[in-house]
Amino acid sequence: MNIEIAVNQIEKSALAHLDLNDVSFGTTFSDHMFIADYLDGRWQDFRITPIEPIPMHPGNAVLHYSQTIFEGMKALRRKDGTPVLLRADAHAQRLNKSAQRMCMPEIPQELFLAGLRRLVDIERNWIPHSEWGFLYLRPYMIAMDDSLYPIPSKKYKFVIITSPSSSPIYGKPVRLITESFYVRAVKGGIGEAKSGGNYSASYLPAAEAKEIGFDQMIYLESPDFKVIQEAGTMNLFFVIGNKVVTPSTTGTILRGITRSSFLTLLEDNGIKTEVRDITIDEVVQAYETGNLKEAFGAGTAAVVSPVAEIVHNGFVMSLPPISEQKIGASLKADLAAICRGEKKDKWGWTVEVHS
Amino acid sequence: MNIEIAVNQIEKSALAHLDLNDVSFGTTFSDHMFIADYLDGRWQDFRITPIEPIPMHPGNAVLHYSQTIFEGMKALRRKDGTPVLLRADAHAQRLNKSAQRMCMPEIPQELFLAGLRRLVDIERNWIPHSEWGFLYLRPYMIAMDDSLYPIPSKKYKFVIITSPSSSPIYGKPVRLITESFYVRAVKGGIGEAKSGGNYSASYLPAAEAKEIGFDQMIYLESPDFKVIQEAGTMNLFFVIGNKVVTPSTTGTILRGITRSSFLTLLEDNGIKTEVRDITIDEVVQAYETGNLKEAFGAGTAAVVSPVAEIVHNGFVMSLPPISEQKIGASLKADLAAICRGEKKDKWGWTVEVHS
Repeated sequence: MNIEIAVNQIEKSALAHLDLNDVSFGTTFSDHMFIADYLDGRWQDFRITPIEPIPMHPGNAVLHYSQTIFEGMKALRRKDGTPVLLRADAHAQRLNKSAQRMCMPEIPQELFLAGLRRLVDIERNWIPHSEWGFLYLRPYMIAMDDSLYPIPSKKYKFVIITSPSSSPIYGKPVRLITESFYVRAVKGGIGEAKSGGNYSASYLPAAEAKEIGFDQMIYLESPDFKVIQEAGTMNLFFVIGNKVVTPSTTGTILRGITRSSFLTLLEDNGIKTEVRDITIDEVVQAYETGNLKEAFGAGTAAVVSPVAEIVHNGFVMSLPPISEQKIGASLKADLAAICRGEKKDKWGWTVEVHS
Repeated sequence: MNIEIAVNQIEKSALAHLDLNDVSFGTTFSDHMFIADYLDGRWQDFRITPIEPIPMHPGNAVLHYSQTIFEGMKALRRKDGTPVLLRADAHAQRLNKSAQRMCMPEIPQELFLAGLRRLVDIERNWIPHSEWGFLYLRPYMIAMDDSLYPIPSKKYKFVIITSPSSSPIYGKPVRLITESFYVRAVKGGIGEAKSGGNYSASYLPAAEAKEIGFDQMIYLESPDFKVIQEAGTMNLFFVIGNKVVTPSTTGTILRGITRSSFLTLLEDNGIKTEVRDITIDEVVQAYETGNLKEAFGAGTAAVVSPVAEIVHNGFVMSLPPISEQKIGASLKADLAAICRGEKKDKWGWTVEVHS
């Protein structure tokens, strides 16, 4: 595939007016974006332009029927300042899995990567230098037909935008409550696809959990509400005895890439892992017998969210103090060290971006 | 509520270049649109403008997390040509039910109706004069925050666009197949909300059904795949013996307004109706004993879609010829007669639009 990217660079970066040590997740955007159009059955017109509004017909299908998919990734830095992408190939693959479920065209992996590298190259100064800062990368694809007929579009846009963040979201230990009414996804649904509908569907459950003092909810498998799925925006890990257990991807949870990295790192460190169905009853029992050593959420933006407390049917499980929850912290440190180049990248997870 | 609508009317209507007897559903739009902005916690800046692209920041939340809701309604004509809206208040109420589930602000019913009436007044010439033609009305609300943080927006846009259609979609009798893998919605999900995620999630099941020769699928209740929910884009009615049976809204199906009108009309005509769980096994049994007299889908755009055939687990149920499926046809005729003013509107379903 011949990938020529036309670049229209701005003259003055908005960075001049920004303190990269003080930007919160997802609200500040860098100077440029990458765009490709899908027209007449092929991806074309690859370009990097100043970030600017996309003119959208009010009958555009994505506004009505939510045919949209996205990825969430990161650019970080080597110790020497070189920009580095984390698991870009895995994200490219997952976007295409989402595309299949949502009847959208796939993005050739080389186009995905070329756009990403070129954009990060241009925006390299937007990657924070702070220890836990990162440049969030948001590749996404949206339907572009101007039609209210509820069928897949013929036209699409693939866009990459970037947003700096001075620290991970959900930095502090979280309080979780199990959900016994709302359902995020079921087998046969779109729970495995990273598509917008899964996210806005979670707003009300999340708001209700927040109202009673929780950071997020733990979704359980419908209709029995026993088997643990995931939290609203992160996969879950439980340290029970000397094993680390995480729900299997049964068609209902997002195949988290941080989750996948953690499983590899754990195995590499000789820690026993189990990927299987895990019920909330098992977690309660482990807690009661003193075997629930640790719990954490895993996701791109937060990396690790240590869990302070889980409440199920009024039963409060207080997890050990964060200082004693060592596995999550060490996974986070390992992943950061691999990105910084301080730890060997055995699996080729990182790609340096050079001009 | 003081509703002042600023109107910026175009000089030359695009109607001049259009044959209203030859426009297919959802792809042609009238000259104007109604817009209101939700800012600082209140709806403001009500206006009718020429239809034009909405400039959308590439980080706009609706493109990523699909916080969007909509209605599908119709403007028709009285016999004398006066525009008439059908069940506008019911649509206003349903939009607000959807808003609650999707954590969006409600639209005051008087604003919804005022915008709709004014817009239809201006676009009155876009309502086809043909017997089954209609001006489709699409009120919708979208998130407008420029943020990748997955929480409800603070800013929204409420928009109404209109699209003429010379005949109902799904005009010919449909072939349906029961779905035994894909799931549209479950209790605790967003199946009752008219939100985009429900529609694009159906694209793949619909495409797979189409590939093997069916027009749509019949969704069954997960995980048992026995209880009938609805077809991809319409509610279902079965005439079994002398009763008309339709699935109850158990939290998983859309509360169709055409469905509701039909139930009222049936009752008014002295036909026995049952709104309850109905399993596919019951339909099969009714078919085998010769009691399955008729089946049809109900929805705003199609009104009635007569069913020619239902296939379940390879078992083919051929319904009586369309000429013998009289109940659906008479409901469609009754509703049209009420709109045209030929039959008394006992329930105040229609509202005339006068300048």
